[in-house]
Amino acid sequence: MNRMNLSGIYAPIPTPFDDRDEVDIARLRAALARWITRPLTGFVVLGSNGEAGLIDEIEFDRVIVAAREAIPAGRTLITGTGRESTRAAVRAARRAAEHGADAVLVRTPAFFKTQMTGDAFVRHYTAVADASPVPVLLYNFTALTGVDLLPATVAQLAAHPNIAGMKESGGDAARINDLVSGTPERFQVLAGTASTFYSALCVGATGGILALACVLPEACLRVFELFRAGRHAEALAVQRQILPLARLLGTYGVPGLKAALNLAGYDLGVPRPPLAPAPDAAVARLRETLTLFEATPA
Amino acid sequence: MNRMNLSGIYAPIPTPFDDRDEVDIARLRAALARWITRPLTGFVVLGSNGEAGLIDEIEFDRVIVAAREAIPAGRTLITGTGRESTRAAVRAARRAAEHGADAVLVRTPAFFKTQMTGDAFVRHYTAVADASPVPVLLYNFTALTGVDLLPATVAQLAAHPNIAGMKESGGDAARINDLVSGTPERFQVLAGTASTFYSALCVGATGGILALACVLPEACLRVFELFRAGRHAEALAVQRQILPLARLLGTYGVPGLKAALNLAGYDLGVPRPPLAPAPDAAVARLRETLTLFEATPA
Amino acid sequence: MNRMNLSGIYAPIPTPFDDRDEVDIARLRAALARWITRPLTGFVVLGSNGEAGLIDEIEFDRVIVAAREAIPAGRTLITGTGRESTRAAVRAARRAAEHGADAVLVRTPAFFKTQMTGDAFVRHYTAVADASPVPVLLYNFTALTGVDLLPATVAQLAAHPNIAGMKESGGDAARINDLVSGTPERFQVLAGTASTFYSALCVGATGGILALACVLPEACLRVFELFRAGRHAEALAVQRQILPLARLLGTYGVPGLKAALNLAGYDLGVPRPPLAPAPDAAVARLRETLTLFEATPA
Amino acid sequence: MNRMNLSGIYAPIPTPFDDRDEVDIARLRAALARWITRPLTGFVVLGSNGEAGLIDEIEFDRVIVAAREAIPAGRTLITGTGRESTRAAVRAARRAAEHGADAVLVRTPAFFKTQMTGDAFVRHYTAVADASPVPVLLYNFTALTGVDLLPATVAQLAAHPNIAGMKESGGDAARINDLVSGTPERFQVLAGTASTFYSALCVGATGGILALACVLPEACLRVFELFRAGRHAEALAVQRQILPLARLLGTYGVPGLKAALNLAGYDLGVPRPPLAPAPDAAVARLRETLTLFEATPA
Repeated sequence: MNRMNLSGIYAPIPTPFDDRDEVDIARLRAALARWITRPLTGFVVLGSNGEAGLIDEIEFDRVIVAAREAIPAGRTLITGTGRESTRAAVRAARRAAEHGADAVLVRTPAFFKTQMTGDAFVRHYTAVADASPVPVLLYNFTALTGVDLLPATVAQLAAHPNIAGMKESGGDAARINDLVSGTPERFQVLAGTASTFYSALCVGATGGILALACVLPEACLRVFELFRAGRHAEALAVQRQILPLARLLGTYGVPGLKAALNLAGYDLGVPRPPLAPAPDAAVARLRETLTLFEATPA
Repeated sequence: MNRMNLSGIYAPIPTPFDDRDEVDIARLRAALARWITRPLTGFVVLGSNGEAGLIDEIEFDRVIVAAREAIPAGRTLITGTGRESTRAAVRAARRAAEHGADAVLVRTPAFFKTQMTGDAFVRHYTAVADASPVPVLLYNFTALTGVDLLPATVAQLAAHPNIAGMKESGGDAARINDLVSGTPERFQVLAGTASTFYSALCVGATGGILALACVLPEACLRVFELFRAGRHAEALAVQRQILPLARLLGTYGVPGLKAALNLAGYDLGVPRPPLAPAPDAAVARLRETLTLFEATPA
Repeated sequence: MNRMNLSGIYAPIPTPFDDRDEVDIARLRAALARWITRPLTGFVVLGSNGEAGLIDEIEFDRVIVAAREAIPAGRTLITGTGRESTRAAVRAARRAAEHGADAVLVRTPAFFKTQMTGDAFVRHYTAVADASPVPVLLYNFTALTGVDLLPATVAQLAAHPNIAGMKESGGDAARINDLVSGTPERFQVLAGTASTFYSALCVGATGGILALACVLPEACLRVFELFRAGRHAEALAVQRQILPLARLLGTYGVPGLKAALNLAGYDLGVPRPPLAPAPDAAVARLRETLTLFEATPA
Repeated sequence: MNRMNLSGIYAPIPTPFDDRDEVDIARLRAALARWITRPLTGFVVLGSNGEAGLIDEIEFDRVIVAAREAIPAGRTLITGTGRESTRAAVRAARRAAEHGADAVLVRTPAFFKTQMTGDAFVRHYTAVADASPVPVLLYNFTALTGVDLLPATVAQLAAHPNIAGMKESGGDAARINDLVSGTPERFQVLAGTASTFYSALCVGATGGILALACVLPEACLRVFELFRAGRHAEALAVQRQILPLARLLGTYGVPGLKAALNLAGYDLGVPRPPLAPAPDAAVARLRETLTLFEATPA
């Protein structure tokens, strides 16, 4: 049972598509070539921001292979492998590991909401963790899934030697506190919401998987490092600087993230239907907010 | 633009799995051989009750082919073909039609909840209906999906010549009323909740896709026929008789439906993990309720 | 244990205030003089639509006295007497009876939401019903109160000889059905939402306390009488006619009800702050909807 | 426009009743005599924990008069004066000031939820603040009221010279951050939830009105002082110590608070009906948790 050190800032990158709505591996490589020049601890591919739910299994393999080729061994590659059935989740984790993922991020199954009890989650994650060649991260994203992986269930799962931590996408500091204080130190909790990142750190999160880190990696890292240095007032000040853009990304979702990255010089294209490109008003607000940020960098 | 007559009672059947968690076509054939002796207007395969979200694309094809072979041409075969991406939903509809489905039932995409605006639904369903060789039914199941296909959007989509109607799984009579009164007569609204079936008929639903109809087809049909004969008090009385079992099926979900059918002499096995078999207490309550019903048949 | 016959249509009238924000008894008398010429079974004063929560105990007495003087003995006067503490609810019921109320309508206490269990409601309503000289009606309005008086609790309370029925303000037909089928025939369920009135009658409601009945008493009565005559299609047609105005009153609340009545020739003034008069856009929509209705009367 | 310094820890004390359900001033005096020996910055009477919604206007006056007599001038006495109508809220604030309150805590009106817009709150609070002889604190408690006083509205109200700050009972650190960063430094935000008190301080709250401070004033003060000394790890450790009792008080509400205080040697009696005394199981858990805390004091 080795501790996998997950401390740091991870960018959950979007998946580019071409004009015919096919996964665009060339664009993905180009974007990664730029991202790896930034001070990011690692990357998450095929997470929610990667439109994983809209991507088929063949595309899934292609994205991981390409990402692994582009991301050097010293930078952590985490792959989203959540599936609704346990058997599909097991298979996805195995394939991700085979293609070079360092860890897998497994979103809760959620379709049959009332059946998704703590016991169901324990069975599901135990089966995946037993089978996965690489460490497993739990992933709770109640706002999208409508189900909730509760601290008591996480505490139970944290005893599994192949479950290294979790991503909690909710911004409630009390919840993060419960997750941290209910699990051994080996188990690491990563925040999933940039708008509450500083608060999450205060109560024990060890890092973040933050859509905002795709766009503003340095600022996210700065909150993290100021916090670690005990410079709380400065960390809170930077947190407040990044808040408006963090909120906009929350509001506009994947279309907003792609639009913000395109404004920042990446070439990520548009989302896959039924997602639509961010509307003009959203792009205008993103541009304005990005400009303000550049004018007063952290 | 032919009117497809959807009036009647449809059974949304579960998908059986074998001991190794594989789709069990032999069991499916055996169950269908019995169901087709009952007075059902038609069948839905690979809907929510068919655990569609836990089934892969290859299994999907096998189930439709087997169902079509077992279901005579005079009985309507509707296939669930909802997918999160528009392109996958288009492909699934085409394959279902190719395998002999009479119509496709397309659940709303739902993963990116806040992006699932009326416009997104219009684009998605229009693309699917344009491509589908067979009529399309919209499918709104807010309790499971967390998104809501609103009457105004349905009214817009009802103008498409290849959209024949919808299944509304919510039990709110005011909503059913809005859906019916906001669409042309050609567009048919099917109720998805047995516990409010009589109320749905009162405000204009033309039938139902009811899990309860897998177990008690005659009773469901009796509510329908008494209502159509203007015998309201009797229809309400039968509705009240079926209510307890309808509620239990709602509470226990797919595991409960499989358990109830197994109690009723079908051989449907257990659900696919992470779903667990219905617990003993649930089976006991289902048995008791079924027994009561048999003692006082409608 | 006499059965109080509550069958029919009741208007829950607003309370007028003068320019100095004082209860305006003269305006109240004038409005009642007109309302009693309409085919209404009875009246509710000091209910939610009467802004009861914004009225002090002295004003409360004055309103009941004035209403009783204006309303002939053959027309039922129901008084809202809900209070947060049991002792205040007991006192209010006694005073209302003393001033001539025929029955009291007692909204659930709701401030300490998580403490408002079924047991708490049983204790509260039993104490009020034991003390009240006139029959008690339970009153559930979850959308406003955030608490829910469940059918099992109502079934328990319905055994009290001085509890004659209830007003259920939710529009869910399944809930109305449960309330009716879980209580003896003596206990009468009145619908509180005009937009689902026909559905409520279908499942056993014996009448309605409907804000819309302040404005369109004849149309509400027509739904009721057509339903009772078994003329379901016609009842549903009138229900659909009244739906737009019913919805607007739901949307605009007490300010909208006062505005609609002012448009209809009553003189009800404006609500008490912090409620504001209905905005111009609301008044315009109300006017337009009222005009349409007058053009195609039921 | 003087700044009222609200920094510190306030105990929102319960109101004792005697065996005949009357306010028990003697018990109140006895309890206050003990509380003033503890290191509390001040007291809130007639807040939610004081069962204010269950208390009539005459009792209201008696409680304030008694509290002011018992609480020395150097300790802040804040009085809850929220009412549903603006005129009643204005009158209550004037009377509280007359009886010696240092400030008034004005809960949002909430009965007509959908009408309680930002504009309605601005009008209401402006009228109260214009009239109140003492500073006004806004009070948002969405879990109880079902309405939400949003940061944009608070930012607008914070410009009023007689609005000194607010109590935010929600535990969301992002919300507290928004309230603090959207208002001038003069405007002070007090946390209302002990279970997230440390997180609230991290993002700028200047103190807390905490039910837990009635029971464990020293521990609450210790979180506050460790935070102010920049000793974050220790503050978080004490926060985690108090968390179980804070949660129990949240779960069991006013009955739990009274039970915990009775266990701690106060004599507060039981709540007013329809509230019931804390059940035995709750008292047992409170006793156990209090004992644990005493064994490992902060």
